[in-house]
Amino acid sequence: MPTDPSKTLETFDNPRPERDYEIRFEAPEFTCLCPRTGQPDFATIRIVYVPDRACVELKSLKLYLWAFRNEGAFHEAVVNRILDDLVTALAPRRMTVEGDFFVRGGIHTIVRATHP
Amino acid sequence: MPTDPSKTLETFDNPRPERDYEIRFEAPEFTCLCPRTGQPDFATIRIVYVPDRACVELKSLKLYLWAFRNEGAFHEAVVNRILDDLVTALAPRRMTVEGDFFVRGGIHTIVRATHP
Amino acid sequence: MPTDPSKTLETFDNPRPERDYEIRFEAPEFTCLCPRTGQPDFATIRIVYVPDRACVELKSLKLYLWAFRNEGAFHEAVVNRILDDLVTALAPRRMTVEGDFFVRGGIHTIVRATHP
Amino acid sequence: MPTDPSKTLETFDNPRPERDYEIRFEAPEFTCLCPRTGQPDFATIRIVYVPDRACVELKSLKLYLWAFRNEGAFHEAVVNRILDDLVTALAPRRMTVEGDFFVRGGIHTIVRATHP
Amino acid sequence: MPTDPSKTLETFDNPRPERDYEIRFEAPEFTCLCPRTGQPDFATIRIVYVPDRACVELKSLKLYLWAFRNEGAFHEAVVNRILDDLVTALAPRRMTVEGDFFVRGGIHTIVRATHP
Amino acid sequence: MPTDPSKTLETFDNPRPERDYEIRFEAPEFTCLCPRTGQPDFATIRIVYVPDRACVELKSLKLYLWAFRNEGAFHEAVVNRILDDLVTALAPRRMTVEGDFFVRGGIHTIVRATHP
Amino acid sequence: MPTDPSKTLETFDNPRPERDYEIRFEAPEFTCLCPRTGQPDFATIRIVYVPDRACVELKSLKLYLWAFRNEGAFHEAVVNRILDDLVTALAPRRMTVEGDFFVRGGIHTIVRATHP
Amino acid sequence: MPTDPSKTLETFDNPRPERDYEIRFEAPEFTCLCPRTGQPDFATIRIVYVPDRACVELKSLKLYLWAFRNEGAFHEAVVNRILDDLVTALAPRRMTVEGDFFVRGGIHTIVRATHP
Amino acid sequence: MPTDPSKTLETFDNPRPERDYEIRFEAPEFTCLCPRTGQPDFATIRIVYVPDRACVELKSLKLYLWAFRNEGAFHEAVVNRILDDLVTALAPRRMTVEGDFFVRGGIHTIVRATHP
Amino acid sequence: MPTDPSKTLETFDNPRPERDYEIRFEAPEFTCLCPRTGQPDFATIRIVYVPDRACVELKSLKLYLWAFRNEGAFHEAVVNRILDDLVTALAPRRMTVEGDFFVRGGIHTIVRATHP
Repeated sequence: MPTDPSKTLETFDNPRPERDYEIRFEAPEFTCLCPRTGQPDFATIRIVYVPDRACVELKSLKLYLWAFRNEGAFHEAVVNRILDDLVTALAPRRMTVEGDFFVRGGIHTIVRATHP
Repeated sequence: MPTDPSKTLETFDNPRPERDYEIRFEAPEFTCLCPRTGQPDFATIRIVYVPDRACVELKSLKLYLWAFRNEGAFHEAVVNRILDDLVTALAPRRMTVEGDFFVRGGIHTIVRATHP
Repeated sequence: MPTDPSKTLETFDNPRPERDYEIRFEAPEFTCLCPRTGQPDFATIRIVYVPDRACVELKSLKLYLWAFRNEGAFHEAVVNRILDDLVTALAPRRMTVEGDFFVRGGIHTIVRATHP
Repeated sequence: MPTDPSKTLETFDNPRPERDYEIRFEAPEFTCLCPRTGQPDFATIRIVYVPDRACVELKSLKLYLWAFRNEGAFHEAVVNRILDDLVTALAPRRMTVEGDFFVRGGIHTIVRATHP
Repeated sequence: MPTDPSKTLETFDNPRPERDYEIRFEAPEFTCLCPRTGQPDFATIRIVYVPDRACVELKSLKLYLWAFRNEGAFHEAVVNRILDDLVTALAPRRMTVEGDFFVRGGIHTIVRATHP
Repeated sequence: MPTDPSKTLETFDNPRPERDYEIRFEAPEFTCLCPRTGQPDFATIRIVYVPDRACVELKSLKLYLWAFRNEGAFHEAVVNRILDDLVTALAPRRMTVEGDFFVRGGIHTIVRATHP
Repeated sequence: MPTDPSKTLETFDNPRPERDYEIRFEAPEFTCLCPRTGQPDFATIRIVYVPDRACVELKSLKLYLWAFRNEGAFHEAVVNRILDDLVTALAPRRMTVEGDFFVRGGIHTIVRATHP
Repeated sequence: MPTDPSKTLETFDNPRPERDYEIRFEAPEFTCLCPRTGQPDFATIRIVYVPDRACVELKSLKLYLWAFRNEGAFHEAVVNRILDDLVTALAPRRMTVEGDFFVRGGIHTIVRATHP
Repeated sequence: MPTDPSKTLETFDNPRPERDYEIRFEAPEFTCLCPRTGQPDFATIRIVYVPDRACVELKSLKLYLWAFRNEGAFHEAVVNRILDDLVTALAPRRMTVEGDFFVRGGIHTIVRATHP
Repeated sequence: MPTDPSKTLETFDNPRPERDYEIRFEAPEFTCLCPRTGQPDFATIRIVYVPDRACVELKSLKLYLWAFRNEGAFHEAVVNRILDDLVTALAPRRMTVEGDFFVRGGIHTIVRATHP
């Protein structure tokens, strides 16, 4: 994991900052490790935000999400972590992050957190 | 059935208690017995909650739901029972439990209860 | 048709009257007769209610709906009739009944009524 | 039930008897009674045939299927009965009848029979 | 086109005028002509209304919609026209009409108008 | 209806006659009239063929299908008619025409004919 | 588990033994136990057969499948066991049994066996 | 790109300006170029608006969207640009434009902007 | 368009030439121009082949398909052209190319060609 | 990657070797690395086989597939590799392996190989 994700996540100037508008990403290629068992977990990450001054650059977002590949992370913690990192990097007007995890023990889990 | 489900249900500390965020579970492998006929009933149980201090540990939730396998339980009662047990164990900021039962007598039944 | 449906519809005590919760039924096996032509009509009946003191017993609900099989009933009237009968029998906190009728004359009709 | 369905089922001359072509019907508004319990059963009836000299007239087919409304009929028997009646009335080059019945006892049943 | 659609559209007395309830129609068999090119247009017409004193009779609604078959009508105008005609005939408590038109020039168009 | 559809249907030279390949069309905007009642019928027409020397030009196919708009045509006859007209115009190596008609009397009808 | 399932499974005389026809059942309410861990497994069981002299009675089939509820059974073995039991009880002309099991360890398993 | 899109976009008089009603377009045939790499991007453009005095003419809208084919445009900028151009041309009471872009780098992006 | 596509299309050695196996591609981002009107056409291109000595390199396939962006091409011709180019470059054991084109004139067209 | 996968893959005795029957697995949680760029690839792996003497144990299959997580592997090679390893370990009567890979460069790829 990058020690300072606000450096990993590149941004560009919002082309229309005077308007509130919404950007959604759906990234179905997310994987991390279970901190208890070391076994892989898989999820789709969904992000919705209203940019203020900065928009996140798509390729750096992809690299940021790939960085979790060898990290141990609980479902609840990883979603809050992604939200915190993106809020730090972008200071958006509002943002929601959702992690939709594959079935474990016959149970399908979705965690969703919103800022502010 | 565990006589005291708040002991069966294990919890861990909410990693981000200062934020209201939502956790959803969908458990399609739920079965109990009809208290009138003794015949098996099947359902999908859906749980949505905003944790306060505690999150429910996924494996203990699985074991808790399996414990209904040999219990007699009416549709309306079982959904309220699961909600009461989880509220006792977790004291969440808010929680909804939904039981989506297979067709009986040509009728498909869904029961949904919310706390508080 | 039962002359007094509040007798046909059996109820049991709401197991959790201190909580507002929702019960949904979907009954796709509903048929009645067109009062004008005598020809069969088919519908799915959907019922959503918040019980007060009484819940409707599932088997008696099935028998109640079957009782329309040889009754003449216009779409608009039959949905209001089912709502009135269930309100009489259950005195729910609130209830919605929806009839979703098969295509007639190339037109698909849905009627939905709510109490109160 | 009509005692002689080959009279109920009206036909018209195949407009193109020199060509083998296929006619399919899907009739989702079929209901009969369970011969054991007297309770209603519901099904979708699907018919596929290659006409020889005669095609079945659509309105008479509708009336023929409605005639089962008050008849007791097992799943396996009713599908074979419809096939036999249509074969008697039409003498098709080939015909398949399928009955797709609603769930009973948690089990969904489809019966399919072909002539010749 | 009928010159006075409030005569074409037949009504019957609302069987339950003391209750606000909703009637929905979906009519996928609508066609008119493009006023510019004379070419056929196709649409699904959806109508939702809360009746006051009068309900529209289903067969007369079918005939009313068929009357557009040889009429030239722009997408925006035809939806407003149907809404105006039905409001004139029924004086409903509220009504929405939606026309969902087939793709033209690679673009799919939906027009939706509400009264009042 | 064009009295000689082989003139209405324009063709162009098959660009690859030395290879057997397949062309499929799906035309959901087909309407004709019921010869018995004069009421409109609607269908999706599907055509699959392997061209020999000639391919059908798309715009002329559209105009050909529109020409049925004011014609009376039974389901079984119209599908065989379209197949015959296209075979006359194109002399394809093989061709199938399918008409998938909207529900009438609660029954959905599909007619499919193949040449040769 | 019944020690002799051919007694548990009731049959009735095939109403049309002179014709080969097909009966399909889909039973989504199947559960057994993992013989290694004792944990519940869930599956949909699908059965297709051509009866010879005997058809299986639907209610006895339901009871037969319920009897696995407290049995330990590997996926591969349980499907072959159900096929063997039904073949013993019915001596069908041909039969296929398929078990479609819920995800375990991120893997979804389907086992399908055919007689003869 | 047209240097002044308010000339490219043709309008016609709103046939019912005294009523607020909604017009939706879905245009799945949109392509532009990535300004960084010059590689093609593809999207579905969705537009919803309530017209004031003017409605956009469908064919001119198609031509306007085609004009982006050889333009470099970032996802966030192109959606705001289309909204700005349409607002300039139509002065609608309100309007939303959504661009739903194909997957790039394993991430699916949707941008949605609303006026006012 | 590349004047010699067998140079544009890069290949790599089949890693398992001793086995017949199948490779499928689905490329929904295909656009070319109508040779008659100059207007854009859009399609999904599907390719299935069994490699002999060579496999097509994915990135060069993407560039090859992009090269049609400014080419005029009839539906029937473009599919045969892609098949011919890929057969020239790869000499596969067998190959099918399918072009699934967006609706034009209310008609959806699919062309499919196979080698050998 | 295990250097000798036939040791990693555990097997158990086929419980019904005298019958040809089919076992299917769908494993949507597969990831490896692109050998050219080092970037992650994601796929669903589907396996269908008819066991001879041995069946593959589900947990060892899961571990075997996880072992690709840090391996570089081309699409075509990885599917053939999995097939070879499973054939070595199980000596099945027949087996098919399919890898269904996420979109890269706007193209979705499926590779399918069969033994023998």
